[in-house]
Amino acid sequence: MTSSTAPIEEFDLIIIGAGSGNSIPAPELKHLKIAIVDDGRWFGGTCLNAGCIPTKMFVRPADLVRNVREAGRLGVSTAEVSLDWAAVRDRVFGRIDPISQSGEQYRASGEANISLVRETVRFTGMHELTTASGRVLRATQIVIGGGSRPRELEVLPFGETVFSSDDAMRLEHLPERIAVVGGGVVAAEFSAIYSGFGAHVTQLNRSELFRGLDHDIAETFTEVGSRNWQIRAGIEITEAKQTAAGWTLTLSDSSTLEVDAVLVAVGRVPNSDRLATPEVGFDHEEDGRLSVDAYQQVLKNGKPVGGVFALGDISSPHQLKHVANHDARVVARNLLAEARIARGEDAQLTENTLGPVPYTVFSAPEIAVFGMSLPEAQAAGYKAIEVRQDYGGTAWGWALEDEDSFCKLVVERGSGVILGAHIIGPDSPILLQPLLQAASFGQSIRGLARGQYWPHPAATEIIENALLQAEEEIQK
Amino acid sequence: MTSSTAPIEEFDLIIIGAGSGNSIPAPELKHLKIAIVDDGRWFGGTCLNAGCIPTKMFVRPADLVRNVREAGRLGVSTAEVSLDWAAVRDRVFGRIDPISQSGEQYRASGEANISLVRETVRFTGMHELTTASGRVLRATQIVIGGGSRPRELEVLPFGETVFSSDDAMRLEHLPERIAVVGGGVVAAEFSAIYSGFGAHVTQLNRSELFRGLDHDIAETFTEVGSRNWQIRAGIEITEAKQTAAGWTLTLSDSSTLEVDAVLVAVGRVPNSDRLATPEVGFDHEEDGRLSVDAYQQVLKNGKPVGGVFALGDISSPHQLKHVANHDARVVARNLLAEARIARGEDAQLTENTLGPVPYTVFSAPEIAVFGMSLPEAQAAGYKAIEVRQDYGGTAWGWALEDEDSFCKLVVERGSGVILGAHIIGPDSPILLQPLLQAASFGQSIRGLARGQYWPHPAATEIIENALLQAEEEIQK
Repeated sequence: MTSSTAPIEEFDLIIIGAGSGNSIPAPELKHLKIAIVDDGRWFGGTCLNAGCIPTKMFVRPADLVRNVREAGRLGVSTAEVSLDWAAVRDRVFGRIDPISQSGEQYRASGEANISLVRETVRFTGMHELTTASGRVLRATQIVIGGGSRPRELEVLPFGETVFSSDDAMRLEHLPERIAVVGGGVVAAEFSAIYSGFGAHVTQLNRSELFRGLDHDIAETFTEVGSRNWQIRAGIEITEAKQTAAGWTLTLSDSSTLEVDAVLVAVGRVPNSDRLATPEVGFDHEEDGRLSVDAYQQVLKNGKPVGGVFALGDISSPHQLKHVANHDARVVARNLLAEARIARGEDAQLTENTLGPVPYTVFSAPEIAVFGMSLPEAQAAGYKAIEVRQDYGGTAWGWALEDEDSFCKLVVERGSGVILGAHIIGPDSPILLQPLLQAASFGQSIRGLARGQYWPHPAATEIIENALLQAEEEIQK
Repeated sequence: MTSSTAPIEEFDLIIIGAGSGNSIPAPELKHLKIAIVDDGRWFGGTCLNAGCIPTKMFVRPADLVRNVREAGRLGVSTAEVSLDWAAVRDRVFGRIDPISQSGEQYRASGEANISLVRETVRFTGMHELTTASGRVLRATQIVIGGGSRPRELEVLPFGETVFSSDDAMRLEHLPERIAVVGGGVVAAEFSAIYSGFGAHVTQLNRSELFRGLDHDIAETFTEVGSRNWQIRAGIEITEAKQTAAGWTLTLSDSSTLEVDAVLVAVGRVPNSDRLATPEVGFDHEEDGRLSVDAYQQVLKNGKPVGGVFALGDISSPHQLKHVANHDARVVARNLLAEARIARGEDAQLTENTLGPVPYTVFSAPEIAVFGMSLPEAQAAGYKAIEVRQDYGGTAWGWALEDEDSFCKLVVERGSGVILGAHIIGPDSPILLQPLLQAASFGQSIRGLARGQYWPHPAATEIIENALLQAEEEIQK
């Protein structure tokens, strides 16, 4: 399959994707000749340039403004609060873009053993890649961290006024009326951002929002979110017609919706197809992800392909930066171990066993969860109990005048281990950590609340009380 | 010492103080004849009525307003934001006062075995109390949870325009110019509240603020706090003259300060003197606290007085509600155990060993700490290291545009146990908990960061990075 004319460029290691994969070249790999390949619009991956990091820089001011708008019940009166879209955008990318650019520059010329290839590549052999310009790259070890891309809607292909999260923060002007299509984290975060900045947002989703989450969490999100933007769940776009102003969307209930622009956030597609990994026979999951084993080794006919590893969105069921980063740590370790094994040295590959995986949504409200809901735990055969602690049942909840937020715990009766934690409400991404820590280290909830102080009257008393409730419940 | 005329009223158990002590009468004590004694202006103790809980209900709106005022750098523009003192006060106490009143009503008439005595009492024997009206109460077991009261300044005795935290939230009008005297948590929280509500606040303290805390924390607090109110540390009030408008304070640097009112928050005095515990010979610490042993038993000549326990501010070095609550749990257990031992049954008293104790300040900025600073750890003979992680070095810090906040960890080199954690910045009271949990269960920091996920890009990444730094440092 190799192009017959191009000279073959040989490397010890090729890393595809400069997101989490970019952290792999550590001092321990200084002896290797490495190529880093990335054809991204920006260098450094989705999280840095169009994902987690810049979104939070928009979330924060949007939150401030929304909190003040809602603060009449707390005694705050305000003439008018507004947010300057262009100022925030320029501040955010004035910070992000130079980081991305200096990261690229460093990779291009910072280390003698590393080359940067800024081209699209396709696998043309199990250890061979051919670039768009016809270069042929080969390596003993290849790491595939090629990520994912926003999924397109057939009825609304991407264009100037139909954009994905890639462009959602770089808009020249904030449209007045925006449809946000989707029911997951990206749609939820941008609905909160745009509405916070003053746009009229309608979120459309073909099913309920957050279908994969605990039912109460999903329901409360929809209820609270609806106070700040329109949510229309269980509805599809059947037709989209471009107008002078923007779009007229015809919906499955025959109603129409006039908007200036549409954000399509209906999931992300792993980039395996673009890398042509199916063509060389690597195994894939039904959704197009590369199949990997517990060591992050890429599989072919169910068996690991020596020297080929994958990490992050292109192979993980979790499209989460913290998961991709951990995958990368496992891969970095296994690259070295594999080389040692090949040299006949005593070494072992490391399994990727870290869990449970937290999932956070920085919308309004915020969500933080890990593990199973009660029905999931029961379906998996666990004897489990569930408890619910409302924020409003604690002093901090009084301070917030909160009537919506809560924490649910699912605990295995016998072991006392937390099988799932589901929090919706202010600061939930931080409140989750003590529970996550206990679950990650297999610590029982027996004695967990009373074995430590919980400073009064901090929000962590929500967690303390949930644990006490659960402890009582498993004793029944 | 007993009054000769009054008939003696006999109880199995007398509880002095309806703060944390009020949680002691649980179903297990249903067989006892119990008296609860409290002469407080409100029922339910300081925390509920004049402390932790209502202050946080003022802190929250003050925070909101301050955040918006400071949010120009985040792109938020606002015409004017203001807070309605009377509306917040009425909302807070419209919620607090009925809770206090219904608690009192329940204690007065809710349970047949419990009587409520709403009078000042003095010890007139080791197991005997005499009330102001001359009633004589005796019991086999007595719990002293009489709390503490604000300390008065000689130069500025309490009066209509010189008030303590007891009255600080119930003011009819918010004075325009307020002097807050003190350098601890109460002074810091009220300086933030009053300035957030729009008053011109000058905080005066004779030494640096937060003298007992890590030096960097104290210094950063002063620097950041000074952006919202005036802080004059290392200064004393030498003279106070009442004027038509309020007070002219002469300070130790010969300058004067004109204010409308003064909040005196220079510490709290344990109420042992009012209960006349010195008169019956109980032991006391230098600061007037009752001396107790590890079982919360009150001591006399260094030995436990049978049947007499103490809890909370009146006996603890920590004037903290979460400590008082835990003391109360230990006392409740030991009341039963002591009675069993007296009946010749097999039982043991429980030691109060819980630690470390967190200390949180809900001011602007927030502070959360436990344990020792590096100099304290070294003085105590530990081989310890210290690391510092700035909020600004994490994605969340970028979202906040934070340049002030940080987390310091002090870790014992050998065991890897956290000896101290010191956080200043947004959400520090919540961010402390995973560290507190690890320290409370003696968990080493080795593997702690990498043994669990930290959802990206939540504020908890500050903690993750502090742990990783510390892990590297103890390996050196």
